[in-house]
Amino acid sequence: MSSIEQKFAKLGTDHAPGQEVRQGDALDTALRGEPLPGVPVDFSHGDVNETAFGPAPGALEEFVEGVHRGGPQAYTEYRGAAELRDRLAERLATFTGRPVSSQRELIITPGTQGALFLAIGATVTAGDRVAIVRPDYFANRKLVEFLGAEIAPVRLDYLGHTDRAGIDLDHLESVFKSGVRTFLFSNPNNPVGVIYSSLEIASIAELAAKYRATVIVDELYSRLLYSGQTYTHLRAAAAADVDGIVTIMGPSKTESLSGYRLGVAFGAAHLIDRMEKLQAIVSLRAPGYSQAVLRGWFEEPEGWMAERTAQHQAIRDDLLRIFRSVPGLAIRTPEAGSYLFPRLPQLSVSLHDFVRALRVQAAVTVTPGTEFSPDATDSIRLNFSQNHAAAVQAVERLAQMIARYSTA
Amino acid sequence: MSSIEQKFAKLGTDHAPGQEVRQGDALDTALRGEPLPGVPVDFSHGDVNETAFGPAPGALEEFVEGVHRGGPQAYTEYRGAAELRDRLAERLATFTGRPVSSQRELIITPGTQGALFLAIGATVTAGDRVAIVRPDYFANRKLVEFLGAEIAPVRLDYLGHTDRAGIDLDHLESVFKSGVRTFLFSNPNNPVGVIYSSLEIASIAELAAKYRATVIVDELYSRLLYSGQTYTHLRAAAAADVDGIVTIMGPSKTESLSGYRLGVAFGAAHLIDRMEKLQAIVSLRAPGYSQAVLRGWFEEPEGWMAERTAQHQAIRDDLLRIFRSVPGLAIRTPEAGSYLFPRLPQLSVSLHDFVRALRVQAAVTVTPGTEFSPDATDSIRLNFSQNHAAAVQAVERLAQMIARYSTA
Repeated sequence: MSSIEQKFAKLGTDHAPGQEVRQGDALDTALRGEPLPGVPVDFSHGDVNETAFGPAPGALEEFVEGVHRGGPQAYTEYRGAAELRDRLAERLATFTGRPVSSQRELIITPGTQGALFLAIGATVTAGDRVAIVRPDYFANRKLVEFLGAEIAPVRLDYLGHTDRAGIDLDHLESVFKSGVRTFLFSNPNNPVGVIYSSLEIASIAELAAKYRATVIVDELYSRLLYSGQTYTHLRAAAAADVDGIVTIMGPSKTESLSGYRLGVAFGAAHLIDRMEKLQAIVSLRAPGYSQAVLRGWFEEPEGWMAERTAQHQAIRDDLLRIFRSVPGLAIRTPEAGSYLFPRLPQLSVSLHDFVRALRVQAAVTVTPGTEFSPDATDSIRLNFSQNHAAAVQAVERLAQMIARYSTA
Repeated sequence: MSSIEQKFAKLGTDHAPGQEVRQGDALDTALRGEPLPGVPVDFSHGDVNETAFGPAPGALEEFVEGVHRGGPQAYTEYRGAAELRDRLAERLATFTGRPVSSQRELIITPGTQGALFLAIGATVTAGDRVAIVRPDYFANRKLVEFLGAEIAPVRLDYLGHTDRAGIDLDHLESVFKSGVRTFLFSNPNNPVGVIYSSLEIASIAELAAKYRATVIVDELYSRLLYSGQTYTHLRAAAAADVDGIVTIMGPSKTESLSGYRLGVAFGAAHLIDRMEKLQAIVSLRAPGYSQAVLRGWFEEPEGWMAERTAQHQAIRDDLLRIFRSVPGLAIRTPEAGSYLFPRLPQLSVSLHDFVRALRVQAAVTVTPGTEFSPDATDSIRLNFSQNHAAAVQAVERLAQMIARYSTA
C-alpha cells in the first residue's frame, strides 16, 4: 500500500452515522426469527422532521432575508460576517461566563464538524500526539490520524460513577507528562451524555495550564441539560488559560439546524487566526446565506428551549425504563444531550452483525460503539431526538432483538 | 518557529480575494493626487446582487422545498443525496461527453473550494510534489503546502499566444519525468480566462497517461464561453485515462450561487471514495438544504445562459477597450469566464501598495497577481461579473490611477 492508501484505509466511514446505506444488506451470519414490523427509526442522528424535532422557529425566515441581503451575505469574510460575529460574541460570553472578542476570538464554521477539523488542523501537525477520551466523538480519532498525528487515549469510567463523568485524571496527567500538548474532548460527552463535574473541569484546566497544553472542547450539547444538572464551561474555570482553549458549539443538534451546516469556535486568538487560514483553503467560509440563520441562535422564543428539553427528557426516561428491563444490559442515565450508550449483554454474533441484523430485521438503525472507542465492542449509540412513540416502539424491538441474540 | 507555526506562515490570506477588509488602510507610501469619486466596485469576486448578476432563477424556491422535505434533505450521505447524484451524473455526462456513474464517480461538495481541497487531500501526501501552472488559482499552492507537499511549477505563456492557452508542454513532461505524479490546473484558466486548445488537452491527456499521473482539473468556468470559442473536456479526450482524472465544477460563478456553497467533483472512483472519507471529517457533507438547489443546475430557463454570457461579453469588451488604451499595459482577451488579468506598466510603488492605493483613493478593489504566481508582481486580477456601468467607470478610475503611479 502507498502511504496515501494507508492514510485513507484508517478513515473508514461505512459504520459512521448516516452511512449505513452503503453497507448493503448482506449478513455474514444467519438471521434469527421473523422480521419485527414497526415504523423504521434511524437513531444514528436526530430526526429533524416536524413529526419529531423540527428546526428552531424563524430559521428559514432568517435564511430568506439573508438571500435578499445579497452580495454581502454571500461573500462574508472567511471567518464569518463581522456584524453577526458581534452579536454572537456577546451571547456566547453570557452563556459561557467569560468575554469573547468578536474581532479576534470567534470564527463561524461549516458545522461543528468543520470547527473540529479547523481547530485540530490549527493545533496538530504530523508526528504530534493528541490526548483523546475513550469513548468520545467518532471523528476525533480520524481527524488526528488524517493529520499524521497519533492518539494518546484517556480512560472515561462512565459506568463507575454517577456524580461525575469519570475521566481518569491521573491518566490524563501521565499523558501530559509524556509530552502530549493537545487534549480534545466533548462535554457533555458524546456518546455517553454525561457532564464533567465542576471538579473535573477545574482539574482539567489546572493540568492543561501546568503542562501548557491546548484544549479543544466540543460543547455541542451544552444547552440541552436535564433537570437538576449544572454545567461548567472549561473556558470560565478559575485556572483556565484562555490562550490555550478553543470552545466549539453549534445549532445542529438541540436546535435541529443541521441542514444549514453551521458551527462556531471561540477562544485562543492565535488559533482562531490559523483556523481562518485553513478555512480559506478548505471551503472558504460557512455557507453565506446560512450564516444569517445564526441571528436567531440563543434568541429562541420564550420557553422554547425548556419545552424542547422536557420533551427529550420524557423520551430519555421511557427508553431508560425499557433498557433497564433487559437482563445483563448496563446503561448510565444521560445528564445532557440526546444520546444513550447502552452496554449490551454478551451476544452470540459480532457487534457489527448485530447492528446490521437490527437494521434489516427490526428497521432500527444504531451506531456501533466501536466508532467511539476500539474497546466499545459491546456498546451501541442511539440519538433519541426522535418521534417519541416511534422511538419507544423501536427500542422495544431492540430489546426483543437483544433477547434473540443474547447468549444468556 | 514551531513546525505548525511554519505551516501556517505559508497560508497568509490578507491579500486573498474578499479579505481586503483585514488589511486596514495604512499605506507605506504617500498617496498621489486627490481621491477619485465613484461607485465602489469590488472586483475581487463577482457581484451577486440583482443590480449586477443575481442568482440563477429558481434557486431559493428549490432551497425552500428542500427545507420542507425535512430530515432526508438535512442528512444526506456524505457524498450527497443519491437521487440528486443520479440527476447530476446524467447532466454532467452530457455536458462533458463521457459517462459518469452517479453511484461511484460523483461527490457533492461545499463549493468548488471544498472539491479542490478534498481532491488534493485524496491524492497528495506529505513529501509529494505537485505540478501547478503559473499563474493559476491562488488556493492551489496553499492546499499543496498545507498537506506538506511541494510545488513543481509549469509555465503558461498566455501573453505569447492567441490560438491556445500557452502551457509549456515540454516543461510539463520534464516535471512528470522528474517523478511528479499529480497535476492540478484550471481550464478556463483562473486568473487569465484562456481556454486550453484541443491540442493542448490531448497532449496533457497523453502525458498524464504515459506517466500515470493523476490530473485534477478545475472547470468552474467551462459554461461561460464567449462567441466563437470551443472547449475540450480533459475527461473526454481520446487518450484520457479516466481512472486518473477528477473534474471539478460548481454553480458559484456563472450561476451566482456562491452563497449556497455548492460544488461537485466527478471522475476516478477510488479518489471519489477517498474524498467522501475526508469530507466526513472536514464538514460531513455539503449543506443539506443547499444541495436541493442543484436540482435546477444545467436546467436554467431557455436562453438564460446565452443572455448571461452575452452580458458578460459586453462588459469584457468595454473593459478591454479601456485597458488597451493604457500605455505599456498588456492584456489577453479572455475566452471564457469573468476574469481579466492585465499586466501593468512599470509603477513607482510596489504592487501591494498600488492595490491598496486603488482601494483607498478610487474605491476599486482588485486582487494582486502574486496570489496566482510569485512571478506576477506586475499583474492584477479583476472579476468583471459586475454591474456594467459601475465596472466601466471603475476601470476608468483604475486607468487614471495607473497613469498617476506609472514611471513612464
